Amino acid sequence: MVKLLVWEQLLNPVFVLMYKNILVYISCLLVVYSNAQTHPFLYLNKQEASTFLQATKTNESNSVFKQSFLETKKEVDEWVGKDVDVPFPIDPAGGYTHDKHKANYMLMFNAGILYNITGESKYALLVKNMLLKYAVLNPTLKKHPQATSPFAGHLFWQALNDANWMVYTGLAYDLVYPYLSGEERSKIEIGAFKPEVDYLTIDMKDWYDRLHNHSVWASAGIGIIGLASNNKDYVDMALYGSDKKGKVGFIAQMDNLFSPDGYYTEGPYYVRYAILPYMLFANALDKANPNMKIFEHRDNILQKALITCLQQTNSNGSFFPLNDALKEKDFTSNELVTAIDIARNKYGKDNGLLTVAKKQNRVTLDKGGLLISNELMTNKIENYFPYKTIESTDGVLGNEGGIGILRNGKGENLSSLVYKYASQGLGHGHFDRLSINVFDKGNEVLQDYGSARFIGIEQKYGGRYLPENTQYAAQTIAHNTIVQDETSHFGGDTELGQKYHANKLFSDYNKPNFQVIAAIEENAYKGTQLKRTLFFLDSVDGRKYIIDLFAANSNAAHQFDLPFHYNGQVVSTNFKYTTPKTLGTFGKHDGYEFLWKEAEAIKTNGIAQLTFLNKDKFYTVSTLTSDTTNVYLTKIGANDPSFNLRAETSIVFRKTKQSPIFLSVVEMHGFYDTKNEFSYDSYSNVKEIKVLQQDEKTTVFKIVLNKSSLLFAVSNNNFDEKSTHDVTVLSERIQWQGPYYYKKMKN
Amino acid sequence: MVKLLVWEQLLNPVFVLMYKNILVYISCLLVVYSNAQTHPFLYLNKQEASTFLQATKTNESNSVFKQSFLETKKEVDEWVGKDVDVPFPIDPAGGYTHDKHKANYMLMFNAGILYNITGESKYALLVKNMLLKYAVLNPTLKKHPQATSPFAGHLFWQALNDANWMVYTGLAYDLVYPYLSGEERSKIEIGAFKPEVDYLTIDMKDWYDRLHNHSVWASAGIGIIGLASNNKDYVDMALYGSDKKGKVGFIAQMDNLFSPDGYYTEGPYYVRYAILPYMLFANALDKANPNMKIFEHRDNILQKALITCLQQTNSNGSFFPLNDALKEKDFTSNELVTAIDIARNKYGKDNGLLTVAKKQNRVTLDKGGLLISNELMTNKIENYFPYKTIESTDGVLGNEGGIGILRNGKGENLSSLVYKYASQGLGHGHFDRLSINVFDKGNEVLQDYGSARFIGIEQKYGGRYLPENTQYAAQTIAHNTIVQDETSHFGGDTELGQKYHANKLFSDYNKPNFQVIAAIEENAYKGTQLKRTLFFLDSVDGRKYIIDLFAANSNAAHQFDLPFHYNGQVVSTNFKYTTPKTLGTFGKHDGYEFLWKEAEAIKTNGIAQLTFLNKDKFYTVSTLTSDTTNVYLTKIGANDPSFNLRAETSIVFRKTKQSPIFLSVVEMHGFYDTKNEFSYDSYSNVKEIKVLQQDEKTTVFKIVLNKSSLLFAVSNNNFDEKSTHDVTVLSERIQWQGPYYYKKMKN
Repeated sequence: MVKLLVWEQLLNPVFVLMYKNILVYISCLLVVYSNAQTHPFLYLNKQEASTFLQATKTNESNSVFKQSFLETKKEVDEWVGKDVDVPFPIDPAGGYTHDKHKANYMLMFNAGILYNITGESKYALLVKNMLLKYAVLNPTLKKHPQATSPFAGHLFWQALNDANWMVYTGLAYDLVYPYLSGEERSKIEIGAFKPEVDYLTIDMKDWYDRLHNHSVWASAGIGIIGLASNNKDYVDMALYGSDKKGKVGFIAQMDNLFSPDGYYTEGPYYVRYAILPYMLFANALDKANPNMKIFEHRDNILQKALITCLQQTNSNGSFFPLNDALKEKDFTSNELVTAIDIARNKYGKDNGLLTVAKKQNRVTLDKGGLLISNELMTNKIENYFPYKTIESTDGVLGNEGGIGILRNGKGENLSSLVYKYASQGLGHGHFDRLSINVFDKGNEVLQDYGSARFIGIEQKYGGRYLPENTQYAAQTIAHNTIVQDETSHFGGDTELGQKYHANKLFSDYNKPNFQVIAAIEENAYKGTQLKRTLFFLDSVDGRKYIIDLFAANSNAAHQFDLPFHYNGQVVSTNFKYTTPKTLGTFGKHDGYEFLWKEAEAIKTNGIAQLTFLNKDKFYTVSTLTSDTTNVYLTKIGANDPSFNLRAETSIVFRKTKQSPIFLSVVEMHGFYDTKNEFSYDSYSNVKEIKVLQQDEKTTVFKIVLNKSSLLFAVSNNNFDEKSTHDVTVLSERIQWQGPYYYKKMKN
Repeated sequence: MVKLLVWEQLLNPVFVLMYKNILVYISCLLVVYSNAQTHPFLYLNKQEASTFLQATKTNESNSVFKQSFLETKKEVDEWVGKDVDVPFPIDPAGGYTHDKHKANYMLMFNAGILYNITGESKYALLVKNMLLKYAVLNPTLKKHPQATSPFAGHLFWQALNDANWMVYTGLAYDLVYPYLSGEERSKIEIGAFKPEVDYLTIDMKDWYDRLHNHSVWASAGIGIIGLASNNKDYVDMALYGSDKKGKVGFIAQMDNLFSPDGYYTEGPYYVRYAILPYMLFANALDKANPNMKIFEHRDNILQKALITCLQQTNSNGSFFPLNDALKEKDFTSNELVTAIDIARNKYGKDNGLLTVAKKQNRVTLDKGGLLISNELMTNKIENYFPYKTIESTDGVLGNEGGIGILRNGKGENLSSLVYKYASQGLGHGHFDRLSINVFDKGNEVLQDYGSARFIGIEQKYGGRYLPENTQYAAQTIAHNTIVQDETSHFGGDTELGQKYHANKLFSDYNKPNFQVIAAIEENAYKGTQLKRTLFFLDSVDGRKYIIDLFAANSNAAHQFDLPFHYNGQVVSTNFKYTTPKTLGTFGKHDGYEFLWKEAEAIKTNGIAQLTFLNKDKFYTVSTLTSDTTNVYLTKIGANDPSFNLRAETSIVFRKTKQSPIFLSVVEMHGFYDTKNEFSYDSYSNVKEIKVLQQDEKTTVFKIVLNKSSLLFAVSNNNFDEKSTHDVTVLSERIQWQGPYYYKKMKN
């Protein structure tokens, strides 16, 4: 019914209420098409274009709009008057024909914009010639020769890229529509577009009719082409799926891929990618009929998605590498430029978005882009996006776990603790329940491998996800979370993982310099419950501390491994270890076979500490080892004959018992001033970690620092804020209300 | 006699000519001391200080002088009115007492400057109190408890740091001299300074009387204290060594540690460090008596040293890591700020230095600093230092080989090929004869390990050079040059290495986009001659190519290894290799024991190619393997139990024969646009490498590219520019004049 509610807004309410199910399609299409829209209208219109022309003539040297216009013009002008190649597709990603078709759709789109802004027909001619070439080429295409997945494309190795082509080529078509003769339009619609639309909606029907980012692109492509070519059938399929019933299609994708908070289930890297077709198609729908109020759909879900994905970036702008994610992507990527500029136009001025726009240092050549450009010139822009502690629920109803981001510090001293207790995240999800990542001073400190892929480099497996992506990067051992018996969560079965999600137990961010969050995972391993409670403390004797209480509770003894993928140079350890003369692997499967075992130690009491240096700051991981703990240092690189992986390092704590507790402190300290050759506070302050009580009801523990001691108690079975607790440990009685207790004492 | 020539300039020429040898010391000292200098005079004087006060009151928000003043003030103000600790020395580098004494001398120096600029006595009081504490402490000191070398210090673990203390504390003393009572001066001179001077010149006499950067610091320290305290004896020892005979001491250090071009034999990293005492002491001497014209000594050798060391930086400002060198040091280091500001004052305005000063973004609070600050505000500053192709000779007479830096491209596209055919470079020298390093786009592409050291981090071997520095970093295999029989040049014997140097054979930089240099090393291995000819070509079908012809000519068969330490991710190879299931080391000694052997291959014909990605650019090394060549891929990390080394990679070509030729092409190509997911020109253009003729007289070879072929001929025994050559290869006759021939042909 959701789809209908949207389309209803186009219609006379009385009429709809009477004949809703039957009449809605006819009526809405009447509204869109009978209004005889003057092209272009999907991205910009004639009137706006004349304003843009004025804006490009400004004398303001710091007009980003003008700069962006000049850059676009420079790129496009290189091709004006030339016979642009529209090659028969043969190469995989990164190869010539792949890159050429990719370049071509952007060229057509940009040339279309320039045609409208400048009024110069040479730009329209460029687009027309290319469109007509595609009109000849596309009907001849079959499945791409380099296709390796069932979701093959025609122009490209995968259908997704064909959908990209449709989005931009559809917009380009609208942009030059008035320049074309009726015959040319007909050639293009039948030759260039129809084969692509038919291929995706008929041959690739199963792929098209999905709730997945690829299908968002496909819906947007077909919808934009439909709007540009006044094709009711296409628009219907775009909005409601190939059967037009609304279980899939764009509206269902808006309804089902985000949580109510705007968290995108595939993770921030993928929403970066998906936000573009969402925004571009919504924008086109909105231009076609503002009464549809698509941007207000689901309580402004697209605005929430944008803000949520920006909160899920590190202070250097890179997206937190949850699930499949390339670390080099940041919020200056083209997708976010487009999304922010469209959002500005629809949702109004936002000082947070302006901080990002300033770093992007370019805008789209549309109304939002011009608004942003003007605001960048007239406002004082902060250096950083307004990062804050934020929890985002996962799942359509917001009840499938989520992502917690706990933050301390400001500006360049911002620290972020990312805690993932979400659902699987579809096919791009990793087996990383209850995993954490830590960022500090703009750098990854405890890292997630991200994905194994060199997108766009043909020599690297055609630019596709490398085999090592599933074999290593997605496996549990590649994450900062517990692995049982050297086997990934859910046995590495995505479908199984997709059935379950972790759950938050409690969180509290109300105390100054003290934050806490706890979550539980009960399905990753049958018969084992994993529970991780994280405290993030600031300004404890001048330092930041993460206290990590990770308990495994099983019905039998198992081997439990907890890795910390530290990013930096080893400075020192407080324990002795042996290093082998020849290196062997850390294990045989589930990602272990990619790790060299560089060192090992057995600790039976006290704490094991590793201090490392990341850029100019020291970090120490201190872990309680009072129950016998094996400690390993590993490095990625084994069984990687094509050198596809980066040689990253980890420290792994291993306990073999029924229900071990991993109690660790991640300490951020000091400063290495290489210019002046000074190091400050390069030593850990953690002296002792003690579990004082551990039973079904309560865990009580103490962290002894140089000057202070921190006493914690956590309830294990009652997380009610109103619950009261009373324990006596070491003849001290502790009483508290709610799920946890904390006290700092001077030594 | 050189020393005398300097001091002569102070004197009445007639007088000197009559009684030169006897009277010169007396006379010069008369000039310096009888002039009854008004303190302060060594760093700034009262009149200058009042100008500086005005400059700090400017409203110009971009005055670097003002900013630097405010930063200094902020740092010093934290200590005003406090009882600053002057602890009894117990810790090694990086420890509390080490860092405290280091901070103390800078604090005294800066407070002394602020006292003069602001006129506020609280700053002088701060300095006085600290000096008096040192006056109490220093007489009690013996050899530092953490001393591990024979060159122990008193305040610090090594004498060098004590010398650092003397330079700045001596300047601080001069700066507050007028504030002190006669009694206080006496306490300080006898208590704080004399024990240090005596210790260095008597106990550490052998160390003090050397031609070495440590001793430059010591001369400067003692000389500055001598000038500040009107102590003739100290100044004499500073200038002429403890016996005042001039074989050592500051003047001899100016005469013997630089080549006539200003190349400092220990390399750019060390001149960065040594330039500071050279400049500060010369400046003080110049203020004491400008007639001495110390800055003109040896044809402005200090100016040449400064310019030469700046030419030996990468475009990101980091010093080329020749010999022992930490890569994080760049030209924004404090030493270079001081050197550039003093040089500005003495040698006049220099637009090249201004580019560096702009990046330093701070100035010293002296006359040169103010001049630079004003010029930064009123001049258009280029983005890059005026880098150029430059050869610097090594050796006092300029006849001990040298360093060639071949450059192509401009600005951010600058590429630098660094070729080291110099002498050993004293104790910090590496066994790296004929080694090359390649930099491109600000990044290291073929790298030198630099030194193994974490300076200032106590946990890392007290911040000293790590054992792995001599065991690995200094060994030949750690460099991009030939290793014979897995043994370093000169058997790793520094004294032996110091006896010999390589020699340049020829070079030519007169053709556009074509540069060539050749050098020979005949002593690294007895009975083997190593000869390397490098061509650096730009704009060959749009790419840059380094052609590397490296010939070993021996009296017996040996195993020759040529590593290329490539910096980047493997993209592809054109050859098959095997990777082992367990990793073993590449060898047993001379640095080989630190390398894991990750892959190996045997090639018997054609070329072996490795393409790698460094940041956003592709590079391919193509090497002719027609005589049987073993190819290895290695990674650092074996036998490194404390994880002191970085896990860097190399490709090693091994040929076992009497006189092999290693003929390689280093190709810079393409671009990886991660934002837009495009890669351009990611494939090598090198199709074939062929040696057409190889005999005692001539080597003729051809590089076949996609579109062009490059024909080269090199003379092997006659490098005379006038020599004529005539060979016929493959029925083509080639005639040329001079040491080489080059022709580009279309395919």
